[in-house]
Amino acid sequence: VRTIRLDVAYDGTEFHGWQAQTGLRTVQGVLEETLAQVLGEPVSVAGAGRTDAGTHARGQVASFTTEARLPTSALVPVLKRHLPADVMVREAAECEAGFDARHSAVARRYAYRLLDRPDVLWQRIAWWPRRSVRGEALAQAVSPLAGTHDCAAFQASGCSASRSECVVHRAAWRRWEGGWLLDIVSDHFLYRMVRNIVGTALHLMAMEDPAASMREVLAGRDRRRAGPTAPAQGLSLEQVYYPGEAVT
Amino acid sequence: VRTIRLDVAYDGTEFHGWQAQTGLRTVQGVLEETLAQVLGEPVSVAGAGRTDAGTHARGQVASFTTEARLPTSALVPVLKRHLPADVMVREAAECEAGFDARHSAVARRYAYRLLDRPDVLWQRIAWWPRRSVRGEALAQAVSPLAGTHDCAAFQASGCSASRSECVVHRAAWRRWEGGWLLDIVSDHFLYRMVRNIVGTALHLMAMEDPAASMREVLAGRDRRRAGPTAPAQGLSLEQVYYPGEAVT
Repeated sequence: VRTIRLDVAYDGTEFHGWQAQTGLRTVQGVLEETLAQVLGEPVSVAGAGRTDAGTHARGQVASFTTEARLPTSALVPVLKRHLPADVMVREAAECEAGFDARHSAVARRYAYRLLDRPDVLWQRIAWWPRRSVRGEALAQAVSPLAGTHDCAAFQASGCSASRSECVVHRAAWRRWEGGWLLDIVSDHFLYRMVRNIVGTALHLMAMEDPAASMREVLAGRDRRRAGPTAPAQGLSLEQVYYPGEAVT
Repeated sequence: VRTIRLDVAYDGTEFHGWQAQTGLRTVQGVLEETLAQVLGEPVSVAGAGRTDAGTHARGQVASFTTEARLPTSALVPVLKRHLPADVMVREAAECEAGFDARHSAVARRYAYRLLDRPDVLWQRIAWWPRRSVRGEALAQAVSPLAGTHDCAAFQASGCSASRSECVVHRAAWRRWEGGWLLDIVSDHFLYRMVRNIVGTALHLMAMEDPAASMREVLAGRDRRRAGPTAPAQGLSLEQVYYPGEAVT
């Protein structure tokens, strides 16, 4: 039995998210079907991040075990021929037994893209919040997030995470061509946490002291004090970190 | 009779180009149908650039004349409700009689986006040329283009342009997030000229002196000495200039 790691990218627009659901087109479902076809045996795939419908990935990591004999080096070209155009397996590698893309991960990096104005070329991968965005206020709003915090304020209702404490390695806005981008790295993410942070940062932009307001929201640990959830299409899972890798 | 100018953006992926063709989904066709529906009379729309299938626009300009009384200020919101998600009318304005988006234009600006590596999130708007790209060599290759030249070398066969002389205001590569972008402004463009310039620049990248080779290609005025045509999806019509506007 071999354990295989796949580095996966996808345009989430036409998917009902990562997680397999009967009758719906999901990334996990498409990967499992395609791998089963290619390897000739049923395959169960674990994913590092269970992205929502419409959310993208440049750096998703998936893993599975198999008894099939297809050389790992053949997997990328074979999958390229069989996968639809909106999913791409960038790399495939054999890992030590026990590697699990989800449970072995020690941190993840997400990007959320805002638009300065409506733009038809970016609308699949970014969100226009229908107001003018002041980057400095956004930066202030997320400045209290780096560090170890209880992030329950950003946890969507229905979230089943056993712990809401997060070690946020970085939370910073930078410019991209179409507007502002939130770059955030944390040891784990609660359900819809990034989208709730973006919605809250926009909500707090108008406050006199966005950083102080964010500290209050965090301390309150109450989803109702945070802002609305930003839509899924602006979000992308950019990178997953495993033990021994520098969290950059 | 009023003459109306529309500033139009579209994701060209799902269109068979700008120009109306019976039975095919084209941008001109969709605009004419939608305007006829909204204005209650048939409308004939002129476009500044007849973009190919798969080519995008951020700054296309269209014009038409109408006897309908709908106020110009109402056109943008009304069209927003009636147009599909991949076409956007950004502005509508009444112009002096005789304005024609195509014939009044004095210059156009196009962008062509190359990718450093395959990327599923950029694949609709950029092209991965399946080789590593050296920006300095690309810059050298296009350096002879600025100025007044006979550009017949870049004219696709089947092009019916009456003159092949172009005044190229600018041709320069710059970085964008996914790779290199060609930014080119000219008083007019021959059929597939930008895509042929991109293909030629990539072809000449491997030469000892890309600038000298490009000068030879230009002087030869022979399409067969230029490189292959780069695919449509990397191209976008960014801006159209009219008399009195600074060509930037």
